[in-house]
Amino acid sequence: MAVLFHHPLCPHSRFIRLVLAEYGLEAELVEERVFDRRDEFLMINPAGETPVLVERSQLVVPGAGNIAEYLDETRGLALGTHRLMPEDPASRVEVRRLLDWFNGKFFAEVTNFLVTEKVYKRFMTSQAGGGAPNMDAVRAARANIRYHMSYIGWLTAKRNWLSGDQMTYADLAAAAHLSCADFLGDVPWTEDDTAKEWYARIKSRPSFRALLNDRVPGMTPGPAYADLDF
Amino acid sequence: MAVLFHHPLCPHSRFIRLVLAEYGLEAELVEERVFDRRDEFLMINPAGETPVLVERSQLVVPGAGNIAEYLDETRGLALGTHRLMPEDPASRVEVRRLLDWFNGKFFAEVTNFLVTEKVYKRFMTSQAGGGAPNMDAVRAARANIRYHMSYIGWLTAKRNWLSGDQMTYADLAAAAHLSCADFLGDVPWTEDDTAKEWYARIKSRPSFRALLNDRVPGMTPGPAYADLDF
Repeated sequence: MAVLFHHPLCPHSRFIRLVLAEYGLEAELVEERVFDRRDEFLMINPAGETPVLVERSQLVVPGAGNIAEYLDETRGLALGTHRLMPEDPASRVEVRRLLDWFNGKFFAEVTNFLVTEKVYKRFMTSQAGGGAPNMDAVRAARANIRYHMSYIGWLTAKRNWLSGDQMTYADLAAAAHLSCADFLGDVPWTEDDTAKEWYARIKSRPSFRALLNDRVPGMTPGPAYADLDF
Repeated sequence: MAVLFHHPLCPHSRFIRLVLAEYGLEAELVEERVFDRRDEFLMINPAGETPVLVERSQLVVPGAGNIAEYLDETRGLALGTHRLMPEDPASRVEVRRLLDWFNGKFFAEVTNFLVTEKVYKRFMTSQAGGGAPNMDAVRAARANIRYHMSYIGWLTAKRNWLSGDQMTYADLAAAAHLSCADFLGDVPWTEDDTAKEWYARIKSRPSFRALLNDRVPGMTPGPAYADLDF
């Protein structure tokens, strides 16, 4: 079986877990605390980041975008009309633009702050920068997420899904990041009804179930986190 | 003709200029100062970043990685055995890993500091954060670049090019970032002879010429910048 090195609240790992579930692919999940900088992990991914997919053939595929492209190239056709990467070049450009948006910009402005401050720092040594969350960073994330909610609402008001008529990698990436913020109680659900309706649709997919059952030692998600009628 | 919105010292823009030249594609270069947050530019790329390729068909392709994938999908086959993205999945994984490394990690640790502090801040208003460079950031970049030079040397010692036997997008991305640091006099060329030999090879390609002629108002590159025998 393939192995996925991940962290339960790493948004890029969650994206790939959603992707694998949509493909119907099983992988053994191995939790990696990247801040420990474990030698064996740095050997397989010198960049020291999750997620990393290791195929049964021992091929190592590091990085969320890289794994998504690799799975589309090796398993995409098998999904038929439900392929997560569209066929025509212009639509692929739009999916990749939104992947950059959520895995890059949303991460830098929202999820990286939230997950580092509220989760990773609990498990890091004080020498490595662990300790109490920097609330300035948390507040910045809470301010930044508002315009991202409006952007999701604006896109899904004129399209069925984020990048067009079909659900693609773009939706799974956006939902993965939002799900981390939601676990931590930091999504302003009253901000945009259209964005909330889109998230409700994606949250009720079978691929989402495992994420809703995630727990982290010492942390309890809010009551609405796993509720499909939030 | 296609249009490329770029900045002469934006490393991601330089990567795409090298790519276009390797494909033999001409594009009109339009300099964009992203820190001005020009409305017309934000309309075509809400992320507000260079490079952005606008095709003659008016298709907008934003982001270096996105443009590289798009060009490979639409023009890659025409390059024959000189295709910049290899054909087999494992080699593609390695190219994309290195693209993430240089366009992501090297940028965050080296070129973003150097170009923001030493170039962009000269042209930014003081309200927008312009002014004298923060030398702590510049020193961090100069320290960080050393291990990247070793990594380039280590990879090119066991392979002909960064990702394998053929020159790929990975080499062009790495060289684009190094060329920005070199313009600013911040590459420690004595650090690794193998890395230097690899850069000399790529610097002498015809696709590199336009970059070596780049000038920025009020800034003079070091004497070795455009010298093929540096």
